[in-house]
Formats: sequence, structure tokens, C-alpha cells
Amino acid sequence: MTPVIILVRPQMVENIGMTARAMLNCGLDVLRLVDPRDAWPLSGSLQERLEAAASGATAVLEKTKIYETLEGALADCHTVYATTARPRDMVKEVVTPRRAVAELFSRAQAGEKVALLFGPERTGLLNEDVQLVEKIITIPANPTFSSFNLAQSVLLLAYEWLMAGHAAPESVTDYGKTRPATKAELFNLFIHLEKALDETGFYVAPTMKPTMVQNTRNTLLRAGFTEQEVRTWHGIIKALSGRKAGSV
Amino acid sequence: MTPVIILVRPQMVENIGMTARAMLNCGLDVLRLVDPRDAWPLSGSLQERLEAAASGATAVLEKTKIYETLEGALADCHTVYATTARPRDMVKEVVTPRRAVAELFSRAQAGEKVALLFGPERTGLLNEDVQLVEKIITIPANPTFSSFNLAQSVLLLAYEWLMAGHAAPESVTDYGKTRPATKAELFNLFIHLEKALDETGFYVAPTMKPTMVQNTRNTLLRAGFTEQEVRTWHGIIKALSGRKAGSV
Repeated sequence: MTPVIILVRPQMVENIGMTARAMLNCGLDVLRLVDPRDAWPLSGSLQERLEAAASGATAVLEKTKIYETLEGALADCHTVYATTARPRDMVKEVVTPRRAVAELFSRAQAGEKVALLFGPERTGLLNEDVQLVEKIITIPANPTFSSFNLAQSVLLLAYEWLMAGHAAPESVTDYGKTRPATKAELFNLFIHLEKALDETGFYVAPTMKPTMVQNTRNTLLRAGFTEQEVRTWHGIIKALSGRKAGSV
Repeated sequence: MTPVIILVRPQMVENIGMTARAMLNCGLDVLRLVDPRDAWPLSGSLQERLEAAASGATAVLEKTKIYETLEGALADCHTVYATTARPRDMVKEVVTPRRAVAELFSRAQAGEKVALLFGPERTGLLNEDVQLVEKIITIPANPTFSSFNLAQSVLLLAYEWLMAGHAAPESVTDYGKTRPATKAELFNLFIHLEKALDETGFYVAPTMKPTMVQNTRNTLLRAGFTEQEVRTWHGIIKALSGRKAGSV
């Protein structure tokens, strides 16, 4: 179960639309608005601005629910954290987005309904909002420029949720129709290159040859050749060194 | 040293402004634009829209530099990763934002200038852009709604950089007396090789040349050339293609 995203008294429909887009990008789709500045359903031009910002995230907007009070929006939730950039005069644990999501993710896996709270653009959440939640999330931002755009804040939490849920590998290479070269294929290429260079007199000082060979082999090894690339580079060496044969 | 953020052919000044804000939120301040749709300096109304979106991140905008070509914007960079949502017909490692930043952060700590590349809003990067970088970053997003807003993509990478800030480097490479090649040095090597191959008639079918160029560049990029290796390989190409001259 994904977290409920709750925007408290949001001002700009653009930010609501961008929030919906960021949520859906990260696989979240439950959005609640508490007392938005513009009444829902929106007028025609506001609806257009909303949809432009949402950029196709209608799956979120169609299910978005409006609440008069924060208490109402929180009623069915079990654990709720609130984002805020500034310290509060409250004894409440402050966690990073990553830590917050790790905790909430575990709770959601255990069947809880969890929620994340975001305040209005200009003022942020009031203390009377923050007092209703378990913990505070503060993004450890640039101390001299710490105020994030509303939809950007939502994105960071949604992204952490996405990453927490992902068992996907951190790194993948698509080999398409080819495959990594075997070492035998690669060594043949090395020998081809070194033989061609030998014939040009490239290895001027014989004592230096082992080091030079080692260096060029090292460079080529780091490239992680595919089988197809090995064939291409045989062709390159042949083309470069072969023209002279034609020109004799 | 923080990463250089490069927006390639950005369309909307709002996204440039929001990018600047997201960057500064996360402590990044070096922004480069390649061939933006609207000419800089911007006209009055565009400048107003830019500044409204930047919401005070003037420290970034005042230093933003404009480049005609991507090659120019990359010239002084050592290692560059590109963000893209869709797979490319290229054998190139694809990493998550977290993994990418872990790698680039280590390199930056070792003194490299690293950069992150972001494509235009509608189309994303072209293959000819992607071929100039070491690795691809793909956000492991909702597969049915995977296209992030441009400034949101920048935020995610900048945020990962911010979070990496306290971590010890996971990977270190000992460059001894040399250093990673700059992109300008590497591009010169590409051109040397392609010119030498052109003279041999290697590119038999002119229509195939762009793909063949892309493939050889991609292979060499993955090798992570040092400055000294670039010089060695100039020598290799010269030796291989030059002997014929001597043998005429």
C-alpha cells in the first residue's frame, strides 16, 4: 500500500498538477487536498492549468479527494509524518526523507495506512497541523536556500518511496543482439594490435615494449568490449594499417 | 566540487528557473545551457517568468553560461552521465540516480569535474548527445508513466548529491602522475581516428558512417581514458595509418 499524499491548503493549481505528475511517476496515486484555495471542482481555466501541469497524470486527479479539515483527511490513517523546513517549538523527532520512508515503508508493509503531509506554498504547515502527526521530515537542504517548491518536496518523498520499494538492480547494460567478448576474443584483438604496431616500428625501445603493451591492454580492457566491437576493432586496425599495403 | 548541470536545448524558461531553484536547494550552483530555445539574455517578459520560477535562486542564474554545442559545454569536464528514460541502441551502462551520484561523487572528491546531462522537455536527448557520455542514468520510475518534468529530474539528481555529501567515497582510482582526460581531449582523439579511417575508405557506405562513428566513440568512452592514454592513442593511430606514407 502506497502512502497517502496530503496537501494542506494548497494555493496554486499548477503545484497540485505537478504533484500529481510526480506522484504517478513514482507509482503513488492517492492524493488528498485539505481546504484548497480554489474550490473543487475547478472552473474551466483553472482545470486547464491543473491538467497542463499534471501532464497526463489523470489517474491521480480523478481520485483526488477534498477535505474541509486536516482531521478529516487523517481520520483513516495510522501513521503520519509532516514535512517542514523550519524548527517547531515541539518535542518531536525530526527525520530525513530517507529515514522517514524507511520507517513508513515498513509500517505500510505491515498493513498500516501511512500518510505524508505538505503545507501551503508560502507559509508551510502551522503548529496546529504539525501537532497532529508522529514525526517531522526535514530535507537536509542548503541552509541558506532551504525552501523547496511544494511539488518538488512531494517528489523527493515519492522518489524515496519508489527507491525503497525497488528491488531492481542499480546497474544494467543492454547488450542487444551482441554479448560481452570472451577474454580469448579480446586477447586476439590485443595481439592483432600489437603485431600491427610492431610492424610500424611503434615500439621504438624494446625495453619499453612490455610497459606499452600493458598500458594499451589496460585501456582496452576497461572499455568492456562486446563481441561485435572486437570484430569492428579488428576491422579498424586492418583498415588503418592495411592501406599502406595497397599503396606499396 | 559540485557537478555541472547541463540542460540540452531546453524549451521552457519556467523549467530553467525551477532547475536553478532545485539546484540551489541542494547546494549546486553551476548551470550550463546548450542552445536554449529562447536566446539569452532573455527578453523582459521571459526574464520575469524565469525569475518567478527560480524563486530567488539568482546565485545560479547569474553564473549560468550558454553554449552553442554540447561538445563546447562538455569540453572541460572529465566524467559525464546523461539522464534518459528510454533505452538506446548502444552498449552503455545504465545506472540509477543513487548509483550514479555515488560514482560521480567519488570522482569529484578526487578532483574531477563531473557533469550531468538533461535533454529537452518533449524529446529527451538524441543518440548523438548520449554517445558523448560515459553512462546513462535512468530513474526506475512507474513504467506506465515514466516521463519526469525536466526540473524534477534535476532535483532528484541534485538531491542524491546532497545526500551523498556526508558519505565516504565508495570507489577510488589511483591516477598516479596522470589524470582523467577532459572531453575536449577525448573528442580530438575521436576526430583523429575517424579522419584516419575515412582516408582508408573504412566507412564504405556513407549512410552507415554515423552509426559506426557512434559505436567506436561509445567503446572508447567506456574505457575512461587518461590524458596520457589519449596521447598514446594519438600515437597508435598515427603509427598505424602513417607507415603506409613511409612505404610509398
